[in-house]
Amino acid sequence: MMQFGLDEATVNELAAGVRPTDAPHGEMEPGVAGEVFARAAWTCIAEPGDGTAGVLVDRLGAGPALAAVLDPGTSGRLAAMLADTGGPEGSGSELEPALQRWRPRLSSAEVIRALRQAVRLSAQLAIPGDDVWPGGVDDLGPHAPIALWWRGIAPALASLPNSIALVGARAATGYGEHVAMEASAGLVDRGFTIVSGAAYGIDGMAHRAALASSGLTVAFLAGGVDRFYPSGHDALLGRIAADGAVVSELPCGAAPTKWRFLQRNRLIAASSAATVVLEAGWRSGSLNTAGHAAALGRPLGAVPGPVTSPTSAGCHRLIREYDAVCVTTAAEMAELVGERTLSLTLDLQAADGDSGGFGGRTSDQIRVFDALSGRSPRTVPDVARRAGLSTAAVQGALGALGLEGAVRERETGWVRGG
Amino acid sequence: MMQFGLDEATVNELAAGVRPTDAPHGEMEPGVAGEVFARAAWTCIAEPGDGTAGVLVDRLGAGPALAAVLDPGTSGRLAAMLADTGGPEGSGSELEPALQRWRPRLSSAEVIRALRQAVRLSAQLAIPGDDVWPGGVDDLGPHAPIALWWRGIAPALASLPNSIALVGARAATGYGEHVAMEASAGLVDRGFTIVSGAAYGIDGMAHRAALASSGLTVAFLAGGVDRFYPSGHDALLGRIAADGAVVSELPCGAAPTKWRFLQRNRLIAASSAATVVLEAGWRSGSLNTAGHAAALGRPLGAVPGPVTSPTSAGCHRLIREYDAVCVTTAAEMAELVGERTLSLTLDLQAADGDSGGFGGRTSDQIRVFDALSGRSPRTVPDVARRAGLSTAAVQGALGALGLEGAVRERETGWVRGG
Repeated sequence: MMQFGLDEATVNELAAGVRPTDAPHGEMEPGVAGEVFARAAWTCIAEPGDGTAGVLVDRLGAGPALAAVLDPGTSGRLAAMLADTGGPEGSGSELEPALQRWRPRLSSAEVIRALRQAVRLSAQLAIPGDDVWPGGVDDLGPHAPIALWWRGIAPALASLPNSIALVGARAATGYGEHVAMEASAGLVDRGFTIVSGAAYGIDGMAHRAALASSGLTVAFLAGGVDRFYPSGHDALLGRIAADGAVVSELPCGAAPTKWRFLQRNRLIAASSAATVVLEAGWRSGSLNTAGHAAALGRPLGAVPGPVTSPTSAGCHRLIREYDAVCVTTAAEMAELVGERTLSLTLDLQAADGDSGGFGGRTSDQIRVFDALSGRSPRTVPDVARRAGLSTAAVQGALGALGLEGAVRERETGWVRGG
Repeated sequence: MMQFGLDEATVNELAAGVRPTDAPHGEMEPGVAGEVFARAAWTCIAEPGDGTAGVLVDRLGAGPALAAVLDPGTSGRLAAMLADTGGPEGSGSELEPALQRWRPRLSSAEVIRALRQAVRLSAQLAIPGDDVWPGGVDDLGPHAPIALWWRGIAPALASLPNSIALVGARAATGYGEHVAMEASAGLVDRGFTIVSGAAYGIDGMAHRAALASSGLTVAFLAGGVDRFYPSGHDALLGRIAADGAVVSELPCGAAPTKWRFLQRNRLIAASSAATVVLEAGWRSGSLNTAGHAAALGRPLGAVPGPVTSPTSAGCHRLIREYDAVCVTTAAEMAELVGERTLSLTLDLQAADGDSGGFGGRTSDQIRVFDALSGRSPRTVPDVARRAGLSTAAVQGALGALGLEGAVRERETGWVRGG
């Protein structure tokens, strides 16, 4: 298939470069090269989350959609098709503005440059249907990524259905970093992959603790996987790319922008099985990730903190207003996505003061024990009056308390103690 | 009416002593003295929360119920009546055990001693129907108190329908005490009365802060109002009795017991409009108060804290498992019982990174601003390519951003900054 006027050999060579294969002579299956090249091109042309691009690619296939966009003669047919699909992104009136935003980027040189840079860095392109494709992102519908660029080991990417996203403030406190570390290590121990955004603060601590626990971890970036951001996390991202995976829907060379950070957040929420916010300010970007998780119906947890700490205000807001589950340990975070391992029935009636539980005692036994002294022996009628119980009830309770060694009988009456 | 063989003059004198009146010669209305005396006697005879006593008093009136219990010949009639009422406390088979537990306490001397001690301390007896009677406790049904002993000022007791209970751990942390202080003062500012249990830690701080803010505060005790407990809070309870109210369903002379603490907790929950737990261990007595609030359908709030703090574990448990509302400020606590004063709609799509909000900007404006530099002017086509937008969209966004002073045009293109 010809694309951007490129011959088939060139398309095949570029596509094969980002799709290593075990097949003889490194050849790709027929048709796959065109699909890979076209999806790579779409990541260069459309900004993340472009719903019109999503609908076109979904309806026509990536290659034909690209060809149609390159051919001005097809726009009438495209608009009619979009109008058929219904929905806000499917409105035919979306096509002309979309063509206008894609047109400035319809350059084969950019696509070729991104692909060559990817080959140089051993970055690969995952497309829907691949073993490593994170199925969760398909829940984004027309806003799903058209393809994902990634560096790292395939098992890390393939483990995303069994991952939990740990996100939070860049300006984390020592408390937040401590909790992130404990959460990440505890979830790795339970077999989960840790997803985050490689930012300073909570994100970085979550990745680090996963690596330190020999767990799998995946970082989603807002720019190309060739330019690690933030630069202070160069070494960390290098380790993630070696033992986990670094993923982006932007091609090599793309800079992170505010818009791309917001769109990256949707991938974190969609690719993982649950999202936990560890620390977040009142208007933190982590709330954006949380909002995506909630919109997708993914389990959402938030870790509480001191109400005096501004970096916990966003977490409390999620619990109050967004029904986020209050999670305080890795075990509770794991419960977000699976069966509860413990009975969590809270027997408030049996809840006791700080001085220690009174086990399974009946109310008669509590009242009789209350009425006894540790020193002065008391008779059964005296205990009955003090406890407000009948003598028969007191005798029954004393018998039970005696069996457990909590009271004993002396010559002149009963006392506490075995 | 004769009771315990006492003549009417004695009953009238004792009852009038705990019911100061403005009437000439301090006389009580006919019949009231007998009712007051009988209810006082019931607080001496039955332990708090005795459902059989509650049903009898409810059905017969306090005086006739007392007389019936004193006359062994009536037990058949009483049992039949109890059987008629249905419900667990109304079962006729409850009568004989009840008579057996009351019998050891059927002593007029105890009642007279309690009344005289109350008169000595200016303690009063509130009974259902009084202006100061906290109507909320009637929701306890057969477990409602038969009468309440109290010391203090009537407006404090009368304000209980507009109160919030602040309870928590005795072994509070500095964090918990700080939050209790802020909460109490903030709720007083909003016109609420502060209810608590006068214990060390959270309770004491809640009372203290209310007094310091010149607010009303009410302490419920597990023993008689003549013996302040804990003794270390003698001075504090004296101040509460002077400017607020100290309340108990136990008569003067009664010692606090574990059972009575648990029953006292039900009064705290039932008499106030909402209950907030500020700090509580995993098995704290405060969870018992919370359980009563939940069982009564009263709004229940819990203040989160560090997940590393054992004294916050009970609060997080209430939020996780008991649907307690996560409350972090006095304003949020006030919302538990009333209209929300602020729109709490959380616009997650607009939530921003730590670097500051982007106000009400559209996604086009965000992307255009992203694509600009603070130094190098960029042409509209250049910005369009970088932003992934059409030139028309870029021009529209630049116009809006220009109006708010976020961008400006130079000779060779657009830059950020006003």
